[in-house]
Amino acid sequence: MKSHRKELWFNVPARRGFVNITPQVEEVLKESGVREGLILVNAMHITASVFINDDEPGLHNDYELWLERLAPHEPVAGYRHNDTGEDNADAHMKRQVMGREVVVAVTAGKLDFGPWEQIFYGEFDGRRRKRVLVKVIGA
Amino acid sequence: MKSHRKELWFNVPARRGFVNITPQVEEVLKESGVREGLILVNAMHITASVFINDDEPGLHNDYELWLERLAPHEPVAGYRHNDTGEDNADAHMKRQVMGREVVVAVTAGKLDFGPWEQIFYGEFDGRRRKRVLVKVIGA
Amino acid sequence: MKSHRKELWFNVPARRGFVNITPQVEEVLKESGVREGLILVNAMHITASVFINDDEPGLHNDYELWLERLAPHEPVAGYRHNDTGEDNADAHMKRQVMGREVVVAVTAGKLDFGPWEQIFYGEFDGRRRKRVLVKVIGA
Repeated sequence: MKSHRKELWFNVPARRGFVNITPQVEEVLKESGVREGLILVNAMHITASVFINDDEPGLHNDYELWLERLAPHEPVAGYRHNDTGEDNADAHMKRQVMGREVVVAVTAGKLDFGPWEQIFYGEFDGRRRKRVLVKVIGA
Repeated sequence: MKSHRKELWFNVPARRGFVNITPQVEEVLKESGVREGLILVNAMHITASVFINDDEPGLHNDYELWLERLAPHEPVAGYRHNDTGEDNADAHMKRQVMGREVVVAVTAGKLDFGPWEQIFYGEFDGRRRKRVLVKVIGA
Repeated sequence: MKSHRKELWFNVPARRGFVNITPQVEEVLKESGVREGLILVNAMHITASVFINDDEPGLHNDYELWLERLAPHEPVAGYRHNDTGEDNADAHMKRQVMGREVVVAVTAGKLDFGPWEQIFYGEFDGRRRKRVLVKVIGA
């Protein structure tokens, strides 16, 4: 069994944002030499997500508004987590809706994707350097 | 390490619906010959889900109403994604709540399930042929 | 390829609660002897979750209130699933928001975690014995 591991670093300049990381994940897969297996891509931080959806700016705008409706940032004092001095309780909720990780099949050395699948890093408490972990296992 | 891959096709006749796909996944597992490992089952389309829950029609009715409350289909013009000519922005949101994929343990050649676990395809933009990917790895 | 499987049992005394299960998962990983691979941790019951987030009581209080707002327990008669004699339809929804499972990379024999990642069992219909499955595969 082969395995390979790499961290990807991101610094989203705003509090929230979505970054298409498919090219970086494909590069890690290529480095791994794995032809058949599974690839795990997960946020290493608990106020961020990795998810698969469409690379369409209108949809990303809709996600932003929708997540803000489900788990609003304000009022900051409305969350007990923020009593610790943080202001990111909402980010811990948005990340649960969008998910921590994706697992993707690797077939013939490629991400085994449907027609529109793309991997995104979803940042909900940005303006600092944060990491995504890519782990590939297989043969 | 063994690996096996198969696509399952679905055509849900309504916009939304839930299909129990456990028997098809069990068949793919049997074909694979894997006795110990992991099986990934994921929607290949970004307006559909694969999830594990109860095969109970009342619950599926509750999910339908609940998801429609969290991410309503109407008004279609309320989503910027729909400016592209689509009317399925809500389906991209419902799919995030229900999830893209499940990973299930394979033990002694079977899906290693609790008492009520069943795998469902969740369709949120149906009336056309769409796919689910099953990938098994193990020994 | 090595594989290892273990069930963890929990009996949360209230209807809802969060339990940090990271130490038990680490123990199963150690027993497995796997150095490089993947570890799957999933609820075996469909009214419970396994998720990764922060071990901070204020946040857990926020999750409790937030999930109750997204999918309220009352009125029990508002859910068709509860016509079956159950009163836990809301638990099936809360579990979808928080997720069934996590997949964690195993690197050099350890859970390959970011700085604050901890694994939780999320109970939404407790006061009885329920199980979590841990499955490790790798080399």
